Amino acid sequence: MRSRDELRTFYHSYIDCLNGQNWSGLARFVSEIVTHNGRFLGIDGYREMLENDYRRIPDLRFEVEVLATEPPYIAARLRFNCSPQDGFLGLDFNGRSVSFCEHVFYEISGGQITSVHSIIDKAAIESQLL
Amino acid sequence: MRSRDELRTFYHSYIDCLNGQNWSGLARFVSEIVTHNGRFLGIDGYREMLENDYRRIPDLRFEVEVLATEPPYIAARLRFNCSPQDGFLGLDFNGRSVSFCEHVFYEISGGQITSVHSIIDKAAIESQLL
Repeated sequence: MRSRDELRTFYHSYIDCLNGQNWSGLARFVSEIVTHNGRFLGIDGYREMLENDYRRIPDLRFEVEVLATEPPYIAARLRFNCSPQDGFLGLDFNGRSVSFCEHVFYEISGGQITSVHSIIDKAAIESQLL
Repeated sequence: MRSRDELRTFYHSYIDCLNGQNWSGLARFVSEIVTHNGRFLGIDGYREMLENDYRRIPDLRFEVEVLATEPPYIAARLRFNCSPQDGFLGLDFNGRSVSFCEHVFYEISGGQITSVHSIIDKAAIESQLL
């Protein structure tokens, strides 16, 4: 998977997989040795992280706002409009909906995601809960 | 400026400009109508923001850890190893050095940066101040 177009197609299919909560299909996209913010998770730990996200945010949906692909990297600005349960990021939501972004860099190797570096805009969430 | 290589060269020159605090050269890279996280700053406001960053972090230095360019976008994972003064991001540093990242998406139009969306990993900083 070397071209920019291949990475774009790959990434949109990955996002469809997440939005469909199609966990049995996750291994098509995510490596067995994947790390997340420098921590080894592996495919099982990665799936657990995502399942946990959906438990904390039942209306979670990934929207790609900006995508920049340059092999071996994919960079995405993701937008979320959702209603997390209390405790997500250590915050109290009291049923409120929030809109926030996540900026993520993925490294692709052997046709799969091997490394994810993600930053969530927690300050933007906090400002909506004031 | 349409090719990936042109964007890479442009971006590294921009980072050199910031690290050199060469504010008189900033207009080569940044548009008069630049926005930052959705807020209009213009070139003067952008320069003020950067000068303020250097006041708060005298040993500030931008290091590009990951770069993904896809016209019209540049995405960068920036690394900072520095000693901010108390008050940066509302935190007390007490002279401590921290290491953290910023994930930034830039939109380029007419050969200049017209839009910046940035998220700083505040949680990583907070965990180093515990």
